[in-house]
Amino acid sequence: MRRFRTIGDGSGFGRDDTLYPEELQLALRNRGMPLEGLRYPITPTGIHYLLVHYDIPEIDASAWRLTVSGLVTTPLSLTLDDIRKRPRRTLAVTMECAGNGRALSSPRRISQPWLVEAIGTAEWTGMPLKGVLEEAGLARAAIEVIFTGRDEGVEGNVVQRYQRSLAVSEALRDEVLLAYEMNGQPIEPQHGFPLRLVVPGWYGMTSVKWLDRIDATAEPFQGYQMTRVYRYARSEEESGEPVTLIRVRALMIPPGIPDFMTRTRLVRAGRVILSGRAWAGRLAVARVEVSADGGATWSDARFGDPVSPHAWNEWIFEWNARPGSYTLCVRATDSSGNVQPAEQEWNFGGYGNNSVQRVDAIVE
Amino acid sequence: MRRFRTIGDGSGFGRDDTLYPEELQLALRNRGMPLEGLRYPITPTGIHYLLVHYDIPEIDASAWRLTVSGLVTTPLSLTLDDIRKRPRRTLAVTMECAGNGRALSSPRRISQPWLVEAIGTAEWTGMPLKGVLEEAGLARAAIEVIFTGRDEGVEGNVVQRYQRSLAVSEALRDEVLLAYEMNGQPIEPQHGFPLRLVVPGWYGMTSVKWLDRIDATAEPFQGYQMTRVYRYARSEEESGEPVTLIRVRALMIPPGIPDFMTRTRLVRAGRVILSGRAWAGRLAVARVEVSADGGATWSDARFGDPVSPHAWNEWIFEWNARPGSYTLCVRATDSSGNVQPAEQEWNFGGYGNNSVQRVDAIVE
Repeated sequence: MRRFRTIGDGSGFGRDDTLYPEELQLALRNRGMPLEGLRYPITPTGIHYLLVHYDIPEIDASAWRLTVSGLVTTPLSLTLDDIRKRPRRTLAVTMECAGNGRALSSPRRISQPWLVEAIGTAEWTGMPLKGVLEEAGLARAAIEVIFTGRDEGVEGNVVQRYQRSLAVSEALRDEVLLAYEMNGQPIEPQHGFPLRLVVPGWYGMTSVKWLDRIDATAEPFQGYQMTRVYRYARSEEESGEPVTLIRVRALMIPPGIPDFMTRTRLVRAGRVILSGRAWAGRLAVARVEVSADGGATWSDARFGDPVSPHAWNEWIFEWNARPGSYTLCVRATDSSGNVQPAEQEWNFGGYGNNSVQRVDAIVE
Repeated sequence: MRRFRTIGDGSGFGRDDTLYPEELQLALRNRGMPLEGLRYPITPTGIHYLLVHYDIPEIDASAWRLTVSGLVTTPLSLTLDDIRKRPRRTLAVTMECAGNGRALSSPRRISQPWLVEAIGTAEWTGMPLKGVLEEAGLARAAIEVIFTGRDEGVEGNVVQRYQRSLAVSEALRDEVLLAYEMNGQPIEPQHGFPLRLVVPGWYGMTSVKWLDRIDATAEPFQGYQMTRVYRYARSEEESGEPVTLIRVRALMIPPGIPDFMTRTRLVRAGRVILSGRAWAGRLAVARVEVSADGGATWSDARFGDPVSPHAWNEWIFEWNARPGSYTLCVRATDSSGNVQPAEQEWNFGGYGNNSVQRVDAIVE
């Protein structure tokens, strides 16, 4: 068996006050959205969050084909032009990494060490997946659809291409796209050129990039990314529950100006408009509240103009800032009554963290 | 005096084996280029490196003006349309952060913790700065030109807008641009919309983003970004020498496929094409050498097609890979005979690091 470097003490977890060089290496490859980016209803492409498990693959679009096979009546092999000629839809979709907030959990699983910035909203243009599946004709026995990306690497010592599956009922939802444009341009290589799956409401691991194969199957798919990771579990041995839809969350544009190194905010005393965005996967955001005292007391924010049914909502709150030191917080409640927790319930992989954001500010 | 959080032991330096949460916070806001991005002669916008000292400012382009004042005959106030109507040039320019490699120096200054990925090459379109300065008419007494960005924050406890200066002789060079397009599109907000200075050959701190003011002056500018940081010095007290042109460097596209967490490469035995890019600021790259034994022995690489006089060169090397563990290295020599060092000469701020890249690979 090949041996990769051991990180830290070999437990797979890091000490709270230090980060390992391997985590830094991932943080510098992958990309968070600077939080002032919350001001844009549609995130500029270059600041949308990005997580790449392996490498960005090199794909020659003219040689590339999308294969649709497995339990279908008519297997398909489609060129990019074939796909672009079919009916298209454009949807604004908020996407978040399932590991967002991982570096805030304790103990922290050693992996991509997100704080809160693994988010973004883009306008994706593509062909509804449903159209392709209907064209191929799903067999009655098909219960899942497997999506395979072109990216290849090693994870947990398993050589693999990135693969995820969806239940047929999810795959046939109207809003699921095979996207070839992001924000009105061909998708940039790092976001999945020439084609990616976009599944609104689900954490980002579902929206398979560099897609080149779709297979219908009669069995639940047992791939690494379905069974070994992206599970809510208490240990590596426990199988737990799959990570699926995005949990409710609100984030704030840090007000005032930042200190370069600590990112503590310096705010001028007086009337300060606090604002940001909130989202809740497939649910609606029912309420957003703001606290200027670290979560001891809360006041309701109001909503701004909606962006789209699959994208975040703007929220706005007027704060009368007096000189002093503050910890600003924001929390959202979804339409099922779930509210963001002050402290995250711990899970092994550091998934689905939606604990309340805290922003340190000095008012002068 | 306002107090920001103390990081680590307060020395301003970090232990070799651990990163501080504040460094992670910066690493997640700022953005490196994943090294497989070296395959593109022109870096896709969304993976070009990005360093933002404070916040990305919100700028209404219709209200924005470029002011040209100080020691000039005719002070100017230009709209974006005014600038777009003037003669334009497009240049492919390789840009690198002066702090690239900082996290590899020992002890490591606590700041943006780059490894080797703070690089990118974009096509910048804009008006030559020289044209604007000639239009305004520089006074004879002018020796420097000061560039002020719209971004504001605190650094070293000093509230400031980002400002850098250039000697008049540098400012009047033909290749210095006031750029409003990057890769054929209006510059995205994070890269300096609506206008940024682009100074080919210099480290990136010189290419002031969100530019809205140019002042000619008879005195050397004493701003924070000129005198307190971006200096080659051995201590905080020593004034040292200014950081200016980009030093010679080569980087390699890591071959094979990566292990997710360690990024160690898994390579199939046989003939492997190693390739990447090399650059040397205002100088030419004279030589690129590759080592498969951690720098013990070196062989010459050949050059690919040139991209542009201000951009990196491709290099290519054929490696006969036999099963085993390797540390692959690449180093470049510039036209003045400077060669990349195996170990960096230390400086206080962690600037100008161009030590040889090391890529761990397992051949099977």
